[in-house]
Amino acid sequence: MSQPQSEQIVLASRPHGPPTLENFRLEQVDKPTLPAGGVLLRALYLSLDPYMRGRMSDQKSYAKPVAVGDVMTGESVCEVVASDRKGYAAGDIVLAPTGWRTHAAFGASIPLRKLDPRLAPITTGLGVLGMPGFTAYAGLMVIGKPKPGETVVVAAASGPVGSLVGQLAMLVGARAVGIAGGADKCRYVVDELRFDAAIDHRAPDFAKQLEAACPKGIDVYFENVGGAIWQAVLPLLNTFARVPVCGLIAQYNATGDFPGPNLLPATMRQILSKSLTLRGFINYEFAAEHYAAFLETVSSGIAGGNIRYREDVTDGLAQAPTAFIGMLEGRNFGKVLVHVGDPSSSQ
Amino acid sequence: MSQPQSEQIVLASRPHGPPTLENFRLEQVDKPTLPAGGVLLRALYLSLDPYMRGRMSDQKSYAKPVAVGDVMTGESVCEVVASDRKGYAAGDIVLAPTGWRTHAAFGASIPLRKLDPRLAPITTGLGVLGMPGFTAYAGLMVIGKPKPGETVVVAAASGPVGSLVGQLAMLVGARAVGIAGGADKCRYVVDELRFDAAIDHRAPDFAKQLEAACPKGIDVYFENVGGAIWQAVLPLLNTFARVPVCGLIAQYNATGDFPGPNLLPATMRQILSKSLTLRGFINYEFAAEHYAAFLETVSSGIAGGNIRYREDVTDGLAQAPTAFIGMLEGRNFGKVLVHVGDPSSSQ
Repeated sequence: MSQPQSEQIVLASRPHGPPTLENFRLEQVDKPTLPAGGVLLRALYLSLDPYMRGRMSDQKSYAKPVAVGDVMTGESVCEVVASDRKGYAAGDIVLAPTGWRTHAAFGASIPLRKLDPRLAPITTGLGVLGMPGFTAYAGLMVIGKPKPGETVVVAAASGPVGSLVGQLAMLVGARAVGIAGGADKCRYVVDELRFDAAIDHRAPDFAKQLEAACPKGIDVYFENVGGAIWQAVLPLLNTFARVPVCGLIAQYNATGDFPGPNLLPATMRQILSKSLTLRGFINYEFAAEHYAAFLETVSSGIAGGNIRYREDVTDGLAQAPTAFIGMLEGRNFGKVLVHVGDPSSSQ
Repeated sequence: MSQPQSEQIVLASRPHGPPTLENFRLEQVDKPTLPAGGVLLRALYLSLDPYMRGRMSDQKSYAKPVAVGDVMTGESVCEVVASDRKGYAAGDIVLAPTGWRTHAAFGASIPLRKLDPRLAPITTGLGVLGMPGFTAYAGLMVIGKPKPGETVVVAAASGPVGSLVGQLAMLVGARAVGIAGGADKCRYVVDELRFDAAIDHRAPDFAKQLEAACPKGIDVYFENVGGAIWQAVLPLLNTFARVPVCGLIAQYNATGDFPGPNLLPATMRQILSKSLTLRGFINYEFAAEHYAAFLETVSSGIAGGNIRYREDVTDGLAQAPTAFIGMLEGRNFGKVLVHVGDPSSSQ
């Protein structure tokens, strides 16, 4: 059997609740051709991110949903196979909004970011030095504004966003408390990432442990989970605490009404009585003003050993749906990537 | 029977749900004596405000609850009866944190604000030129930051805070939409306060009417109610909308759990997907920086006829509990004051 020219994964149907493999379909298609003035790309690594769950639904949101039958949205590190675009040559490594596919072609107007493989591993462009990293930076530094001695709490602390939130908090002299699922991840958060504490949200006395780890309360809570963790954080928030709301992975899969009791009045009451700030955000809102400072801060943090990261790589585009479903269930350990192909120099 | 020297109203018991007359007790006590270096005051008007409901409960909040048996918290316009304090003389009119009583004495260190009866009616020091007015100013101008052409929505729009929120919004060129209870109040909000629209929250199609009154969505929602009104506002909020959270009168009387469905996830989802800002506040957080500008803006607005206000005056300290309960039920029309005594010049 001959190797298919090109592969892609499309949204086969919209999920009801947690996505299943049936919601995705792998398709064999013709390799795209080089457009005039454009580039032809071959994907090396595809990034899988929680926001993609939102694009699978047709609820109104800040971004359009993926249409049923369309290729799943996503960003990849790619190698330029052929180029008719000035400044791009075969062999260059670029970040591109390819979607979940092995090959993609872009015209002259699509912004592509070149990566220099000598400066950092190319996969970091999808993680600590890419969108997840900037999400952590913007939410923490622009909205959270931690001060020395304050306490910063973040969930999914072993993941690409949470791990950087805590490490940036420590860089400004704040205390970092991570929440993660399971002993292995908690150990990693304390031993490798050097957070001041890590709490396992699966522990039966999780709320008590969190309180014990935050003896001076919480000044910044970087929200990327929602649900039960928010309920444990809420009573610990200090007056004037800031809550950048970056994600709500605990509720992405829910369908229909949420059963009672109604927890909104208690949250509103805390917002009022503690003068809290809750601020939702999407990273690109802050890119023009803060992206350069982010790259500078995090690059030098990595170089100096103050910022560490971890990747969870799955092999083969066909495995992307399985890896994505596992990530939504918290089974990943680090930034989730799918290895789609190798650079031509190593082939 | 001789006239009692002095009267006060104490918290007789904590309310479960809406306060009742049984939660208050009128007491006859000796008139306080002039402390060394201090002042002896006689109350003329007592201010009744929604925040006092919070002080009747012993839930943790930004301020200590009133102890059972203690005088209810509150601020009054008073006449100085006798003074041993520099700068204060008998006959002066001052604002003072007297609580619900006819007479009060203060030592040298308690801050008192002198009012000039020639500049504005003295009751405005408890309303449009006092705490409620500054609450409206700070929440709208410092947190809400309305821009010309934007839409500002406020509930309890005929009340002392809401009426000023809308009038200040119009002063900066924004569109003001008020929510009020009943046709009379709505008429007042449009005809007298000149809001662009007013919606009766008791109308069965309230949410639809609100949507029709906000064809370009809502950019600033000044939250002083919560509950069903928040649910109608939430889907209309625009991306980057600001929500100063000033009060939650709809939920102050609730006891125990709120029945389901759980409305928190939907609110969190909107915060995230629309990059909303929710910010709780207490007016005095902003006083040092903004009080002078507030007095200047609102005084000149009143003088120029751009800012109007309305008072709802009940006669006699003994009637304060009834007036307070009515205010929590929305039966007042304008700033709620209790007339406790007359200036000596008019006696």
